[in-house]
Amino acid sequence: MTKVPYKIYLTEDEMPKAWLDLRGFMQEKPEPFLNPATLQPVTLPELEHVFCTELAKQELNTTEKYIPIPEDIQSFYKMYRPSPLVRAYNLEQKLGTPAKIYYKFEGNNTSGSHKLNSAAAQAYYAKQQGLTSLTTETGAGQWGTALAMACAFFGLDLTVYMVKISSEQKPYRKEVMSTYGAKVIPSPSDTTEVGRRILAENPGTSGSLGCAISEAMEVSMKDENCRYVLGSVLNHVLLHQSVIGLETKTACDKYDVKPDVIIGCAGGGSNLGGLIAPFMAERLEGKNGIEFIAVEPASCPSLTRGKYAYDFGDTGKTTPLMKMYTLGNGFIPSSNHAGGLRYHGMSAIISKLYSQGYINARSVIQSKVFDAATMFARCEGTLPAPESSHAISVAVDEALKCKETGEEKTILFGLTGTGYFDMSAYMAYNNNTMTDYVPTDEDLQKGFDTLPKI
Amino acid sequence: MTKVPYKIYLTEDEMPKAWLDLRGFMQEKPEPFLNPATLQPVTLPELEHVFCTELAKQELNTTEKYIPIPEDIQSFYKMYRPSPLVRAYNLEQKLGTPAKIYYKFEGNNTSGSHKLNSAAAQAYYAKQQGLTSLTTETGAGQWGTALAMACAFFGLDLTVYMVKISSEQKPYRKEVMSTYGAKVIPSPSDTTEVGRRILAENPGTSGSLGCAISEAMEVSMKDENCRYVLGSVLNHVLLHQSVIGLETKTACDKYDVKPDVIIGCAGGGSNLGGLIAPFMAERLEGKNGIEFIAVEPASCPSLTRGKYAYDFGDTGKTTPLMKMYTLGNGFIPSSNHAGGLRYHGMSAIISKLYSQGYINARSVIQSKVFDAATMFARCEGTLPAPESSHAISVAVDEALKCKETGEEKTILFGLTGTGYFDMSAYMAYNNNTMTDYVPTDEDLQKGFDTLPKI
Repeated sequence: MTKVPYKIYLTEDEMPKAWLDLRGFMQEKPEPFLNPATLQPVTLPELEHVFCTELAKQELNTTEKYIPIPEDIQSFYKMYRPSPLVRAYNLEQKLGTPAKIYYKFEGNNTSGSHKLNSAAAQAYYAKQQGLTSLTTETGAGQWGTALAMACAFFGLDLTVYMVKISSEQKPYRKEVMSTYGAKVIPSPSDTTEVGRRILAENPGTSGSLGCAISEAMEVSMKDENCRYVLGSVLNHVLLHQSVIGLETKTACDKYDVKPDVIIGCAGGGSNLGGLIAPFMAERLEGKNGIEFIAVEPASCPSLTRGKYAYDFGDTGKTTPLMKMYTLGNGFIPSSNHAGGLRYHGMSAIISKLYSQGYINARSVIQSKVFDAATMFARCEGTLPAPESSHAISVAVDEALKCKETGEEKTILFGLTGTGYFDMSAYMAYNNNTMTDYVPTDEDLQKGFDTLPKI
Repeated sequence: MTKVPYKIYLTEDEMPKAWLDLRGFMQEKPEPFLNPATLQPVTLPELEHVFCTELAKQELNTTEKYIPIPEDIQSFYKMYRPSPLVRAYNLEQKLGTPAKIYYKFEGNNTSGSHKLNSAAAQAYYAKQQGLTSLTTETGAGQWGTALAMACAFFGLDLTVYMVKISSEQKPYRKEVMSTYGAKVIPSPSDTTEVGRRILAENPGTSGSLGCAISEAMEVSMKDENCRYVLGSVLNHVLLHQSVIGLETKTACDKYDVKPDVIIGCAGGGSNLGGLIAPFMAERLEGKNGIEFIAVEPASCPSLTRGKYAYDFGDTGKTTPLMKMYTLGNGFIPSSNHAGGLRYHGMSAIISKLYSQGYINARSVIQSKVFDAATMFARCEGTLPAPESSHAISVAVDEALKCKETGEEKTILFGLTGTGYFDMSAYMAYNNNTMTDYVPTDEDLQKGFDTLPKI
């Protein structure tokens, strides 16, 4: 057999022509989103007020297995995709493991992460519908950057509400978005009613993601040519991210690589859902016995310690109710934990599959994540994002297990992004000032107390 | 004919097995480096004090056309290479030009630039020789990062003297190097005699590249298991960078792409020299009529307004004398100009070829560079480094000329890196605070006055 190269790149012909919707393969579907006022399933007309029509339709799909990728989005993807499937030869050697380790690397674009896969689709559909502008929020900035790139390309105005503390700590991240033509407003701001109210009540506030969401939604609701867009959690975001898994599957098939374990970090679940999509579809059809592992921070353990319940997607309680693993919309993740995995809930699709035992979950403490990240950087070259490094950490654990048992397992994980924009976390690690916060049962109970009583 | 894809990736089999040394193809060789004390050509024993033996040999080669790439370096290259040759379909469309535009993108590795190509080679040869450590200096930080990555991989200690003002303004850049295990010391420091002297004389100094070089060289000279390494200008650096051009040539041949114009930014000349290597070799053999264009900032115009003379490579006057286009070792480039093209001299190879008319040169003012950079980012996705954007600017000019004349020229340029780490320049551009400094003839004369009288 041909030796597997360090990096497998597909040709353009081999790139996916359709996204894969896992719901089409699931016997038992995720529970529908509910209107919090009526407790009835949300309808297309309701969703169309928030999202553009095509995305609302995708959000409500439960039967279609494949959704064609429009040609213009395929073209956009060709600017920065296919992303490489990398054989981690150097990591294998460093660990001395008989395991074969692969990772799908999504960081080679200016946004620095997989977020661009859905940003491209969401901007395209908005443009198709004749909308002129979009609003969104951003915390760390990866989603805002990805959407700024997509809006620049498709010719849409974009307003990004960026959590004030982030916009102050990351002026250059803000500048990347500005360079792509986005209007970046530190939140809370005086440009919205909710922002002015929050500023009046808390003059010195440094902002929060919940507040930024509320401001972005308020602006979009007031302009019929504008919509609000979101970068994770939702079903249509997982759909777009399936391009990650579809490429991975084609690359694996090309070299007869059969993963035994697939590992992804899980914040809102869009990267994990995208990576596993075609492999899980086969598993649901009984065609493989792959173990799927979601990795979350021990500080924000929605799968491993959360409840499977209906909850709001945001702290402001403005979204529909979603049945998911959640720590409660009022759960406040520790601010000293790095990365973008600090979300109280989890994608409804991932939650359902986890509840059925198709996905396992593990939580990892922060310092262990950075141990793995640093080792990885030094032997594989790429400096990984803190989020992605959760997956690295568990991949390393699995590879070391193989070293003990002598098993030659094939381990595949998702490397969602690069760490250039999160060096403050590395700095804390390098200076030994990083802490390993794990919430107590009492901490979690406070979050659970905020679950809606329905 | 097959449509050219957005990105051409070579297979591992197609990657170069040998570097190309342009001097092997030149009828008239670049003038030899001179020992400033004796004014005699420097010898291998002299160079071995500064560089490790194999690199010193490469530095002095003038006849070999190809130098085999050791297998371990080939393996290292496979971690982040081949880099894509990109067809700029979106830029062509944006400009409405009949020209076909291609760029070779070197930014998809954690150092963010092509610098890693030579860092890998230099670290490898040091390890082979049994050395245990290296020293270098870094300004903006790309070279330091690249070398830190290479030293982590090959198991060498690295001390980086980082210009103090840069280390303060770019704490995260410093942190990337630390994460790869490098010791980063803000320069001037109290760790060297020269550093202590400078600190005593100028207690509040923010440092300079010249001072950082002096400190790094002093440390390496005192330890026989240590050598000093440099990331540009030198012949062996151009040799290693030929991997850029060799990959490009193979990719072009694969799709029958025949460049009419090849454009590269030129600071010390290593990227330009690497990109053009195999194309220029053919030109020297009379096999093509490609136009080669070096692009430099109008603020530091060594080719377009400099003198072809023997000069020191550093402001501290510690290097051998090199015959090159230079503004004088005492020329102080404007600090308000962005990017890493602020070097007073130019590679001896590039200088020789330019003096013979094989290379043309243009200078561009800063705001025009950022006009091109921003347009490029918005339509091609990637946010380019300020340095690389000099090449973009001239490529756009050439493409617009084709629009006027109707010529379907094939334009190829080098995109050496990403701009993530230089957002302060974009910020100045976005805020309209960027200035377009062009030195007066009097400014230049002050630099010329520092040329050694030999």
